[in-house]
Amino acid sequence: MSLTIKLHVTTSYLNLNLNTSKNTTKVANFKVKLRTKPIYHCDPLLSVVSNNSAMHASAQPGQPAIRSSLIDPDGGALVDLVVPESKKASKALEAESLPKVNLTKVDLEWVHVISEGWASPLGGFMREDQYLQSLHFNSLRTQDGSVVNMSLPIVLAIDDETKERIGSSPNVGLLGPNGDLIGILSSIEIYKHNKEERIARTWGSTAPGLPYVEEAITPAGNWLIGGDLEVLEHIKYNDGLDHYRLSPQQLRKEFDRRQADAVFAFQLRNPVHNGHALLMNDTRRRLLEMGYKNPILLLHPLGGFTKPDDVPLDVRMEQHSKVLEDGVLDPETTIVGIFPSPMHYAGPTEVQWHAKARINAGANFYIVGRDPAGMGHPTENRDLYDPDHGKKVLSMAPGLEKLNILPFRVAAYDNVEKKMAFFDPSRAKDFLFISGTKMRAFAKSGENPPDGFMCPGGWKVLVNYYESLQTEEASEQQAVLST
Amino acid sequence: MSLTIKLHVTTSYLNLNLNTSKNTTKVANFKVKLRTKPIYHCDPLLSVVSNNSAMHASAQPGQPAIRSSLIDPDGGALVDLVVPESKKASKALEAESLPKVNLTKVDLEWVHVISEGWASPLGGFMREDQYLQSLHFNSLRTQDGSVVNMSLPIVLAIDDETKERIGSSPNVGLLGPNGDLIGILSSIEIYKHNKEERIARTWGSTAPGLPYVEEAITPAGNWLIGGDLEVLEHIKYNDGLDHYRLSPQQLRKEFDRRQADAVFAFQLRNPVHNGHALLMNDTRRRLLEMGYKNPILLLHPLGGFTKPDDVPLDVRMEQHSKVLEDGVLDPETTIVGIFPSPMHYAGPTEVQWHAKARINAGANFYIVGRDPAGMGHPTENRDLYDPDHGKKVLSMAPGLEKLNILPFRVAAYDNVEKKMAFFDPSRAKDFLFISGTKMRAFAKSGENPPDGFMCPGGWKVLVNYYESLQTEEASEQQAVLST
Repeated sequence: MSLTIKLHVTTSYLNLNLNTSKNTTKVANFKVKLRTKPIYHCDPLLSVVSNNSAMHASAQPGQPAIRSSLIDPDGGALVDLVVPESKKASKALEAESLPKVNLTKVDLEWVHVISEGWASPLGGFMREDQYLQSLHFNSLRTQDGSVVNMSLPIVLAIDDETKERIGSSPNVGLLGPNGDLIGILSSIEIYKHNKEERIARTWGSTAPGLPYVEEAITPAGNWLIGGDLEVLEHIKYNDGLDHYRLSPQQLRKEFDRRQADAVFAFQLRNPVHNGHALLMNDTRRRLLEMGYKNPILLLHPLGGFTKPDDVPLDVRMEQHSKVLEDGVLDPETTIVGIFPSPMHYAGPTEVQWHAKARINAGANFYIVGRDPAGMGHPTENRDLYDPDHGKKVLSMAPGLEKLNILPFRVAAYDNVEKKMAFFDPSRAKDFLFISGTKMRAFAKSGENPPDGFMCPGGWKVLVNYYESLQTEEASEQQAVLST
Repeated sequence: MSLTIKLHVTTSYLNLNLNTSKNTTKVANFKVKLRTKPIYHCDPLLSVVSNNSAMHASAQPGQPAIRSSLIDPDGGALVDLVVPESKKASKALEAESLPKVNLTKVDLEWVHVISEGWASPLGGFMREDQYLQSLHFNSLRTQDGSVVNMSLPIVLAIDDETKERIGSSPNVGLLGPNGDLIGILSSIEIYKHNKEERIARTWGSTAPGLPYVEEAITPAGNWLIGGDLEVLEHIKYNDGLDHYRLSPQQLRKEFDRRQADAVFAFQLRNPVHNGHALLMNDTRRRLLEMGYKNPILLLHPLGGFTKPDDVPLDVRMEQHSKVLEDGVLDPETTIVGIFPSPMHYAGPTEVQWHAKARINAGANFYIVGRDPAGMGHPTENRDLYDPDHGKKVLSMAPGLEKLNILPFRVAAYDNVEKKMAFFDPSRAKDFLFISGTKMRAFAKSGENPPDGFMCPGGWKVLVNYYESLQTEEASEQQAVLST
């Protein structure tokens, strides 16, 4: 496409009138605003705003449907920090020679996340500039002046002793929780870990009992170490689930292979019931109506740290696979993968991370529910977050403008139709809401939920899990009694 | 200026090559990134990044110095919410008829701030969307897609009883602390005031003893009310200082009248000593060297709520006027005004507000010191904020790209030269650091600081103030004893 543009420069605005030279559709009128940093900077930013949507996928009659390619990863290119096979031996030798930093289980999950590019363009644990931007602005300004979302500080804490050991070394070796060599962090920067400020700004609360805080922040050191990450090989867990741990690169390849023209992601850390399935299938239907030819669902359970009363990953994966076996979701148009991030339970702050990481995996549509990444307040009898804030914050978040946010429609059990259905307020009394707590109570007691709440195969997985828990508890109690 | 531009559209990038048609200096090569919201939105944003600074003021030899006009206010136009004289009577009648909200002293300071456009483009107390953006992103996205800085939630709290009284009225009348009719808030929105979250995200701490929290949040109601503000007249305090309370509009007029081609703002809530003066005079010298012909200093003490142990506004204003009388600062190139905002003591979060408000007043240079808007941690023996974070956060803050941040050079008392001078680390032992605490201790004890620390007229004001405090304390003690 070739265009001629007339540019009129006023004191600090450019008015740019744009006309196509080819006789295609009219393209746009642009208003251009010049933001200058008159003396100290050489990178004035121009924001150009168009009131035109003709370049976008459209299903309007008379216009050809346009096939989208996959959404660009943040920063333009996917970060991949796994050392090439040819350099692995020499890198291992180098890492061996460096002062060491010991990683916890959660640290290793972050190494996994960063190394595969889920946090693109982040190339390692955050240095202070990045940490501050994340904490204050939930976003990072990249070198070209554009903004990417980054709502959670992705940081590595070390204690005084480790800091001492590192001394003035510019690089450190990373050791996994089992003492195995994981990789290298180079051109490091060590700065203070103000835990109170980090917790307050990330969670909007400093109440005792926040699960990630208790697991990963309170016991951590008083310093943060940032730098460029390299890992010797892809992070594996050898728990029988590694084949589900598809990297953003692998996911994008698979979406391409399936010729997806839209990818919609569903983040979850709970079993899939038929209300979820209804929502996902309905989303696909709506995307088809919009003119997409082949929307693909990324069913994407979170696989890192979760709080003890959440259903464990292995049980959830078994449950999800039953849901596909039972035909509740169509395997042809669904990809199940594990999202390796640990869970913060940081509500509106965290939901941005969940969405942003899925952009990097190729998703251009993101389904958001009520109170995403939320939980009960640890010390007060209320939700920690306003259940509507997650969706609102996500829809306004810097760097997520290119992602389409699909609000979760509320599904409940329809006692008339005997199935999960979208809630119809005009006949509210026909609907039964089955919360996660209620679902767990059913499963624990061995009682069946109403027919059509969850596919039988999936339900059985849950019942078995809670039975095994009770057996375990009973034998633990017996062990206590018999000692 | 007229330009021809070739536009090449790839999947999601536009590469825009720009050449001047007139034979002036080469202008720029632009790289354009198209951020699309393919279906739900019709406003794709184009960020255009230039690697060229030829359009900027420059003092390079052979090039003519370019005279800047004043920096644009955020959002393009200054907000002015004072009802025109012709409509005052009818608006007063309308306000009279509405359900009333009582304003505290601090609320009224915010009404002052908003009504004169210091918070432009904010047109009233924040509605929930604005509140959430401020809390999470320290910025607001405007309707044209551009981003303005907004780091502090500017909100109005009401209690249950007031909410009840308002009922379903879309508008409310505002009553000042003395019961006088102040204005109207219209198209209101009432939403929850989650104090814990607001405090944690604004201060990065929930420790008891944060001055603004204790003054204005803890005692406030559990609801926030947002809406469009109109005030019946300019807010006045009748304290003999109103002539210092220049609005952004008045300041801009005065800068224009003086033909300022650069305005550099100095925010303070403390007396001016000769170190400050050195810094301000040195900044002017540097601006002249850059090619500016008439840089004007905006000496801009904060006039709203401050904590009890800060020097009160009237004393500070008297001290500042002595500093100008004594010729330490040049009245020809200095404007003294009062910034009507209350003080949050919220460090890196608040310094953005201080800077942003000065853009609206016409300043394009902002001087930032060590630990701006900081204080000691209320319950721990440390600074509440890392003293370097304010400057760092300010330099990266969204919406402040157009402001030039001038880092504060450290000045101290030079025992050899017998005056305040920029600290020279090569002869560190010659320098004496006189902190605010030390200065107050000198003034309280009636002891003189070293010659050249502060002009004698200004120092006398402080000594008198602390003497009067001691007299007051003594008579209070006597009053207690004699009852």
